[in-house]
Amino acid sequence: MLIVKAGGGLSISMDSVADDLAGLVNQGEQLVFVHGAAEHTNAVSEALGHPPEFVEGRNGLTSRRTDRRTLEIFLMVYCGQINKMWVEALQKRGVNAVGLSGLDGRLVRGTRKSRIRVRKGNRWVMIRDDWTGTVDHVDTRLVQLLLREGFVPVLTPPALSHDNEAINVDGDRIAAHMAVSLQADILLYLSDVAGLLRSYPDESTLISSIKPNQIDQFIDLAEGRMKRKVMGAKDALQQGVGEVVIADGRVEDPVTKALVEAHGTHIG
Amino acid sequence: MLIVKAGGGLSISMDSVADDLAGLVNQGEQLVFVHGAAEHTNAVSEALGHPPEFVEGRNGLTSRRTDRRTLEIFLMVYCGQINKMWVEALQKRGVNAVGLSGLDGRLVRGTRKSRIRVRKGNRWVMIRDDWTGTVDHVDTRLVQLLLREGFVPVLTPPALSHDNEAINVDGDRIAAHMAVSLQADILLYLSDVAGLLRSYPDESTLISSIKPNQIDQFIDLAEGRMKRKVMGAKDALQQGVGEVVIADGRVEDPVTKALVEAHGTHIG
Repeated sequence: MLIVKAGGGLSISMDSVADDLAGLVNQGEQLVFVHGAAEHTNAVSEALGHPPEFVEGRNGLTSRRTDRRTLEIFLMVYCGQINKMWVEALQKRGVNAVGLSGLDGRLVRGTRKSRIRVRKGNRWVMIRDDWTGTVDHVDTRLVQLLLREGFVPVLTPPALSHDNEAINVDGDRIAAHMAVSLQADILLYLSDVAGLLRSYPDESTLISSIKPNQIDQFIDLAEGRMKRKVMGAKDALQQGVGEVVIADGRVEDPVTKALVEAHGTHIG
Repeated sequence: MLIVKAGGGLSISMDSVADDLAGLVNQGEQLVFVHGAAEHTNAVSEALGHPPEFVEGRNGLTSRRTDRRTLEIFLMVYCGQINKMWVEALQKRGVNAVGLSGLDGRLVRGTRKSRIRVRKGNRWVMIRDDWTGTVDHVDTRLVQLLLREGFVPVLTPPALSHDNEAINVDGDRIAAHMAVSLQADILLYLSDVAGLLRSYPDESTLISSIKPNQIDQFIDLAEGRMKRKVMGAKDALQQGVGEVVIADGRVEDPVTKALVEAHGTHIG
């Protein structure tokens, strides 16, 4: 079982990823695909006159300020434009894809952070109408039903809150929870960097392998989304996932390169 | 088995429809829900600087001019914003909804009209880059799988062409094909009119009942989308659907009013 998460960067080629996934599925690989759409969402938000805003939380990480209008745009882009373009790209290649968000069948449950404290200049202010949250768990019943019948699930945020509202959550965390729940052999993150770099952005400093007991000493090398991925890798390995790979999504055959030729950073 | 199609008019209340559907599902009714999003798509198209255009075809019916950019906006609004808002509205009411487009699991197959002849003033011109099409059939395997497991399918255009491309098709036709394939007892169309009117738009001229052998004499009373509904009703009844109802989606309890109190036009 393979879980592949493709980031929402514009430099990731949908055609290359879809070609590669179709090859693996046609060889009989069981696959769950998760995708983001962050940069497309930024573009549509700008075009609709509701430009994206990013806020820094108490944990030092930034997240998208998600008022109800932003959430609507998020649904449009993640679940509409991008999810269905992935499904179409896979269908064109003979893969019987089914696109689902975390809302559908209560697939991904999370906790809404109804009040978030964010930095505004030198001050911390409270925001009360935000629709971001954290992933608590995934219910694999629907995904396993689809896999058993030969469909390939194509998953995207948002998640469903415990009050049954759509909330903006991190797609990387959905992929990690899915990998744990399905006890995947490999959890592969494709994004617009070559992997974990000792000296960002110098790609010649790629760290190609990290043993589980070394993760802590590497976490401080990473920042932002990469830090979240490495922290998530540690959790996933501890909970039974075979290997976590962080690799370049901007190349031809990005999936098989990461799996076969050992591109990227292999953790586990 | 009940198939409900809600039109994409802004005057249809998502809350009222969702309340009513949830009541029926909680009473044990088996339900497939289909929705449109035409007016929301018009609004987003305008906001994105790609205003909607409608063309008149050789059959005298109008359809949305769908270039590739329009198709992307169509995916955003139908599959993203509106499909997921329906799913969220149903989940909030305890209904375990799963939103799917016709692409997902090859649910709805259609034929792309890659060349369409449309009227421009007094002339007929050929358009070659259009992504509209007609529904050929629905594959109910995925829908039946979901129904068996207690999920409620929430379906939306587009369909998947025979070349595995997304195509803009009529949601009313998806509902009619679904009703025939599942041999539904009732196919209910909710839209922003009270039903078939003898003298449009005078609602006091509502035709409340049409027997199957009377359909032909009523077809000429209808225009545009209503004509398509009445024509579709004739096909659906001939192919085993119990009854077709065309009723007002702008009222409280629109579904139970149509079913129990005999609002709208009942055909069959």
